[in-house]
Amino acid sequence: MDLAHLAQKVTERTGIPLTPRDGERILAALLASEDIWRIVELSRIPILAVCAGLRVLEEAGWVEGRHGLLRLTPAGERACRELRLAPAQELACPRCAGRGVEASLLREVAERFGRIAAGRPEARQEYDQGYVTEETTIARIGFMLAHGDLAGKDLLVLGDDDLVSLAAALTGLPRRVAVLDADPRIPSFIAAAAKAEGLAIETYVHDLRLPLPPHLQRVFDTFFCDPTESLRGFLVFAGRGIAALRGPGGAGYLGLTHAEASLAKWRAIQGELLRWGAVLTELRDAFHRYANWPYVETMRSWPHLPVKRRPGLLEPWYRSALLRIELVTAAAVDLGPVEGDIFEDDEAGTT
Amino acid sequence: MDLAHLAQKVTERTGIPLTPRDGERILAALLASEDIWRIVELSRIPILAVCAGLRVLEEAGWVEGRHGLLRLTPAGERACRELRLAPAQELACPRCAGRGVEASLLREVAERFGRIAAGRPEARQEYDQGYVTEETTIARIGFMLAHGDLAGKDLLVLGDDDLVSLAAALTGLPRRVAVLDADPRIPSFIAAAAKAEGLAIETYVHDLRLPLPPHLQRVFDTFFCDPTESLRGFLVFAGRGIAALRGPGGAGYLGLTHAEASLAKWRAIQGELLRWGAVLTELRDAFHRYANWPYVETMRSWPHLPVKRRPGLLEPWYRSALLRIELVTAAAVDLGPVEGDIFEDDEAGTT
Repeated sequence: MDLAHLAQKVTERTGIPLTPRDGERILAALLASEDIWRIVELSRIPILAVCAGLRVLEEAGWVEGRHGLLRLTPAGERACRELRLAPAQELACPRCAGRGVEASLLREVAERFGRIAAGRPEARQEYDQGYVTEETTIARIGFMLAHGDLAGKDLLVLGDDDLVSLAAALTGLPRRVAVLDADPRIPSFIAAAAKAEGLAIETYVHDLRLPLPPHLQRVFDTFFCDPTESLRGFLVFAGRGIAALRGPGGAGYLGLTHAEASLAKWRAIQGELLRWGAVLTELRDAFHRYANWPYVETMRSWPHLPVKRRPGLLEPWYRSALLRIELVTAAAVDLGPVEGDIFEDDEAGTT
Repeated sequence: MDLAHLAQKVTERTGIPLTPRDGERILAALLASEDIWRIVELSRIPILAVCAGLRVLEEAGWVEGRHGLLRLTPAGERACRELRLAPAQELACPRCAGRGVEASLLREVAERFGRIAAGRPEARQEYDQGYVTEETTIARIGFMLAHGDLAGKDLLVLGDDDLVSLAAALTGLPRRVAVLDADPRIPSFIAAAAKAEGLAIETYVHDLRLPLPPHLQRVFDTFFCDPTESLRGFLVFAGRGIAALRGPGGAGYLGLTHAEASLAKWRAIQGELLRWGAVLTELRDAFHRYANWPYVETMRSWPHLPVKRRPGLLEPWYRSALLRIELVTAAAVDLGPVEGDIFEDDEAGTT
């Protein structure tokens, strides 16, 4: 057993492209934790690849499950020493949780947002939902504010179980806030909350497999979107966002995980964003933390987990990077309607 | 006068591609500060474009220089209100300076590094030098550590007036540290300091216009490089770094400014990195702060500054983003020797 073998086995079994370095990531996570959810989080590779990798390591006698915990065996520990692996560590700043943003200025917005979000619709698997923590949403708003993408701007949110539109509108800074979602509960909840709070937010029920309504194309300064993560699904969501922008200088924000996207998929996504006329201006990994959703036992990766345990409410394990892109040239997206399932590919683990 | 006109005028005069949004950035910076260096910093566009933009704004009667300060005129203020522009603000976390990294674990390394760096060679214009603050170097090391790119790894530093090689070796974590620099003072200083501290660092005098010596190709896990920023120069430095990596899973760190690189240049760079087989895994803007260098009055942008004032020692204004890339496929870089000046292009402002 070596890391190349580990990577190759996982790729054979899952179809997910892995490098030996990704194998290292699983071992470094095992050196840092015995808890399956923390191992998934620290590995920073697709959850289905973590599961398959742990299975290969078990078969090789490097790892064993005991009392619901995963432990390196003496053979596994020896291998880690020979590879000179260190335990995974994050060194995230404790004040900003590694995001780099000071959001304390937004305290009042955060308090109002917290009161509104308490009544939010619960996440539903059929829409691949799963919302970020309230703290994350407020940090996002701070980040957009610091990049000049909120004050005086026209903002479109594509899919909004995170309620970004409400948090943005609560700052009183954007000129216009509009939101689309395929799940009618979301626009309905947002419209009611906006009315109660005296906020102007336009809400639409819209399936992003279809192009944006013409009156929402090429009229926004900023879009926000936390796409589903099949390659096709991600690009459809991102492409619709770009099509909403007025032109060069328009900015977009996107979430992207490791849990459902290999670095090979990240590269394919980045290549497409560049081809469409955008540049990446920020990419902050682990910016977003998600509240645990209720459907963990029916998600695709559940049967593959070597240890079956629901993560506790205070153990968020699913995170994503925040990307900021900006159009440098006129957008070159030409995306018609798409059909069928846009949620699934080999790497999708939570749908 | 409108923002499209402003952008177009600047592009005509400087050859630097600008969007109306970039014009907004200059105005938002003027709303936040009257100081030329802070305006340059907050604008986040090439310094030569800031200078040309301020000139166009002066001609339009929107800005005036008075007592060494730059102020919006009543006409300029009115225009900003009509554009609904807000003052530029950064909301950087005060604990980690917006970097997201907690480097306090490295306190001992930081102290030893500070003592060594006190005797460092001063920055020289002929090599386009200008080093980052010591705090920045330590944060970099923390960031590399958190990404698993130091412990047990083989590290190559390409150009090292920042003394990253010394800081990395002081952690005691890398398996191998090697450093190249065209300026013989740097390898010589690093070798002497390494000897005095009992650190193993290989040092080479090498001009990066030439390919790496064969024994340094394809043998490293991690490279670090803060390239010169002409498009050609940046890609030569980055390409040499990638050629030093063993293969997929190898990681590279690069610095990239706004002060000398438009977003159009950022996009060209990102496209090339992707084509070479890499993916961007992190892009943290304003991660690096530079100590002010002694040659500010002979740098290319000096004659263009609307207000001539040397920045004070405690006013760092030059910053850069930190990019982390990782090879997803075998590297596809085929870079022979290059000739001539690799420091200059339209956007270079400090050479």
